[in-house]
Amino acid sequence: MKNLISVNNIELKDFEGIYKLFRDYKEKYKNGETKFTDLRGYSILLPFFESSTRTRTSFELAGKILGADTINISGSSSSVKKGETLYDTIKTLEAMNADFIVLRHYMSGAAHIVANKVKSRVINAGDGTHEHPSQALLDAFTILEKKGKIEGLKIVIVGDILHSRVARSDIKLLKMLGAEITICGPQTMLPRHLEVFEVDYVTTDVNEALKGKDVAIFLRIQLERQKKVFFSTLNEYSIRYGLNQERVNLLKEDAVIMHPGPVNRGIEMQSELVYGDRSLILDQVENGLFTRMAIYRYLLQN
Amino acid sequence: MKNLISVNNIELKDFEGIYKLFRDYKEKYKNGETKFTDLRGYSILLPFFESSTRTRTSFELAGKILGADTINISGSSSSVKKGETLYDTIKTLEAMNADFIVLRHYMSGAAHIVANKVKSRVINAGDGTHEHPSQALLDAFTILEKKGKIEGLKIVIVGDILHSRVARSDIKLLKMLGAEITICGPQTMLPRHLEVFEVDYVTTDVNEALKGKDVAIFLRIQLERQKKVFFSTLNEYSIRYGLNQERVNLLKEDAVIMHPGPVNRGIEMQSELVYGDRSLILDQVENGLFTRMAIYRYLLQN
Amino acid sequence: MKNLISVNNIELKDFEGIYKLFRDYKEKYKNGETKFTDLRGYSILLPFFESSTRTRTSFELAGKILGADTINISGSSSSVKKGETLYDTIKTLEAMNADFIVLRHYMSGAAHIVANKVKSRVINAGDGTHEHPSQALLDAFTILEKKGKIEGLKIVIVGDILHSRVARSDIKLLKMLGAEITICGPQTMLPRHLEVFEVDYVTTDVNEALKGKDVAIFLRIQLERQKKVFFSTLNEYSIRYGLNQERVNLLKEDAVIMHPGPVNRGIEMQSELVYGDRSLILDQVENGLFTRMAIYRYLLQN
Repeated sequence: MKNLISVNNIELKDFEGIYKLFRDYKEKYKNGETKFTDLRGYSILLPFFESSTRTRTSFELAGKILGADTINISGSSSSVKKGETLYDTIKTLEAMNADFIVLRHYMSGAAHIVANKVKSRVINAGDGTHEHPSQALLDAFTILEKKGKIEGLKIVIVGDILHSRVARSDIKLLKMLGAEITICGPQTMLPRHLEVFEVDYVTTDVNEALKGKDVAIFLRIQLERQKKVFFSTLNEYSIRYGLNQERVNLLKEDAVIMHPGPVNRGIEMQSELVYGDRSLILDQVENGLFTRMAIYRYLLQN
Repeated sequence: MKNLISVNNIELKDFEGIYKLFRDYKEKYKNGETKFTDLRGYSILLPFFESSTRTRTSFELAGKILGADTINISGSSSSVKKGETLYDTIKTLEAMNADFIVLRHYMSGAAHIVANKVKSRVINAGDGTHEHPSQALLDAFTILEKKGKIEGLKIVIVGDILHSRVARSDIKLLKMLGAEITICGPQTMLPRHLEVFEVDYVTTDVNEALKGKDVAIFLRIQLERQKKVFFSTLNEYSIRYGLNQERVNLLKEDAVIMHPGPVNRGIEMQSELVYGDRSLILDQVENGLFTRMAIYRYLLQN
Repeated sequence: MKNLISVNNIELKDFEGIYKLFRDYKEKYKNGETKFTDLRGYSILLPFFESSTRTRTSFELAGKILGADTINISGSSSSVKKGETLYDTIKTLEAMNADFIVLRHYMSGAAHIVANKVKSRVINAGDGTHEHPSQALLDAFTILEKKGKIEGLKIVIVGDILHSRVARSDIKLLKMLGAEITICGPQTMLPRHLEVFEVDYVTTDVNEALKGKDVAIFLRIQLERQKKVFFSTLNEYSIRYGLNQERVNLLKEDAVIMHPGPVNRGIEMQSELVYGDRSLILDQVENGLFTRMAIYRYLLQN
C-alpha cells in the first residue's frame, strides 16, 4: 500500500496495521513522548485546493510531530491561479522529491488521477463528493476504541448521504468491518442507486433510523456547497432530522454520537449535545491526529 | 499563571519572572545561541482572525526558535468560513493537544471567553479594541532596558487612545510599574470615562503633553478600521498631533520615542524620525521576539 | 557575496562555488542524506508580494532541509494591507534577526532597494520584470549537468523576452559563461535597445531561431500580466511560436528543451512535449531545490 486514495484500497491487514500504529503513537503521546524522528528527512507537501482547518491542521501537525518537513500550498495563492493543471502541479511537487503529497481537491477523483503517475506517496485528504479515507479510518478507530469491536454494531448515518465524501468512505469501511449500516435523510439527499452504497437499511424517517442503534453519525449540512435549497428553511431540516434529547433516547443506552465537524449548531444537533456525554466529536478530532501519524508511518514502511 | 489574556492578570512577580527569561534569552541569542529545545515536543497553534505581520511572525518565530511545532490558521482560509463558532474552533485545537493557542480576534473579549474552557494555554495576541498584553510587556521591557527603571518615569501616549488595545494594555501595565501616564489625542479619540484608564493627565494639546516627558508612545491611526473621518484631512491630524523635530525638542533631553508599528509615515511622525536617534521602534520589534519566547517559557513552567 | 540580487553580482568564482555546493548537496541527497544541520539556528523569512508555488515552495523546503526556521509572509495577509512601505517591512524583519530575507516583489528593483540597508542576507526571488537570479543559476546548472559545459553552446530563448525576468537573468549569466544566445519572439515582445541584453542574434522567425541549437528555452506567456493583447488569439501565438514536433526536429539531435514553468500547455509547446525525452522541465524543478540549498550555504560562508 503506497497511496491512500480510497477506502476500496484498504484491506483488512492494512486496517489492522494502521490501527496498531495508531494505538502505539497514541499511547506513547499520552505518556509524554510527544516528539518523534520516524519521518525525519522526509518532506510532506500539502496542496489544498479547498479551505480546511481541521484536516489540514491535523495532517500538518501529525507530520511535524513525526519530524518531517511540511509545506502548505493553498489553491488560491499558488500557480493554480496561473492556470496550471493539477497534473503539472503534482509532477512539480514530485520533482521536488516530495515523499508525501496530501491532496485536497474539489474534483471527485482528483487524487486517483495523479496518484499512480508519481513516485511520491499520495494521500487523499478529500476529493469532491467522492472519498475522505483518513476520516473513515479515524471514525472506525474511534468506534473501535469505545466499543471494542465494529462487527455486528448497528450504525446509522444521518444527513446528506448523496453528496458526502465522509458518508461514502465511512459506509464502505464500516461495512467491510462487519457493521450493519442504516442511512437516513430527506429523499433528495439519498442516493438513488443503492447498490453503490451497499447499505442495509434506508429510510427518510429519522426516529425509525435511530431506534436501537449503537452509533449515530451526523453529517454536516454543507451550507456553502448547497446549490439548491431542499427545505423551505433550515429550521425544517432541524425539526425533521436534527438530533435532540428525545431522539437521543431512541438510541441504545450506551450509544455514541459522532460528527465529522464543524457542527452547524442547532441544525444537525441541538447545541447542548455537541460536547455531551454521548458525543465522541472531540475524540474524533484527537484521534484524527494519531490516525494521520499512523497513515504516514504505514505508507512509509510498505 | 496559565494564560496571558489581559494585563490585569499580570502580577509584579509575573512581570519580573517574564523579564528575567526575556533577558536570559536575549543574552544567549546575542552570544550566538540561536536555537533552543525548551519547547521541543510542544505544539503552538496560531489562529489569526485578523491579518498581521509582526505579531504573527514574532510569535511563530519565537516558537520555532524554542523548538516547538507551530501551525498557522488564518481566519479567511479556515472553517470559519463554514460558520464554525470561535468556541468550537478552539475546542477543536485543544482536542489536537495544542499546548499553546495564540489567538488574534476582531472581537473584544474573545481570548477571555475561550481561555478558561480549554486545557491549552491561551495567549491573547490582540482582541478587538480590548487588549494586547504581549505588546505591553515588550514595550515595558524596552523602556526598562533603556531607562533602567519604569517607576517615576513620565510617559505620554499620543493618538486614538479610545480604540487602541495597545494603549489600554500599556497604560495598565506601566501604571502598575509606577509610571506617570499622560494621554493625548483629539477629543473624539479620548475615553470619556477616565476611571477605566486610570491615567494621570489627559490633554488634547500635544505640545503640552510632550513637555518634559521621558517616553513618548505614538499610536497608529488605524486607517483601515476608522469608520468615521474625525478630521477633514489626515494632514490636519499630522499638523495637530504628528511628531516633528520641533516637538521632539519639547521632550526631555534623553527621551525616547516608541510606536507599535507599522508607522503611517508623515502622519503619526515625520519620516526622518522613524529610525532616528531617539526612536526605539526597531528595538520594540526585536524585543518582541524575545518577549514572546519568554512568555511561552513562563506559561510552561507555571 | 552577501546578497543575491542580480546576476550582475555573480562572478565566475561565485558561480563555481555555488555549483560545487549544488553538486555536493544533490549527491548526498540522492544517497539518502536528506536532512542537514548546516542552517540550524538560522531563520529564513519569505515575504512574497506575488503569488508563487514553485519558487516559494522550493526556497522554503530548501531552508527546512538545511535545518533553518522558515516563516512565510504573504503580501495579501500582511501589514502591507495597512499601507506599510516595503522598506519598513524589511527593516522589521531585520529587527527580528532574520538571517535571510527571500523577497518576491512586483516592483522591478525592489530587492536592490532594500538589500544594502539591512544586515540580513537578501535573496531576490523575482522582482517585477527585472531579475530572477536563482532561476538563472538553476537553469545554468541544469544545462551544465546535461551538456558538461556551457561555453560555446548555442542557446535560443523564445517568447516575451522584453517583460521576462527569467530571460534577463538567463541571458546575462549564460553569456558570462560563454554561450551564444539567440532571442526570438514577436516584435512587440523583443527589446528595442539590444545593447542592454547583449545577445548574439535576434529574430522574429522561430524556425530560423531553433535551427541547429543545443538548448531551447521557452518562456511562459504571462497571461495574468499581459495588459494588451498582442495577438488576435493565443492560438496565433501557438501557431507562430509554439513548439511542436516538427520544430523540435530543427534543433540539434541531442538538443534539450527547457521552460521555467508553469507551462501553458498548447501555447508555448504542445502538450506531449512537456515531459518528453528532450524536456528538462522537471530536472529544472528538482535542481531548483538543490540550487536554493547551495545559495543559502554560499551566502552564509561569505
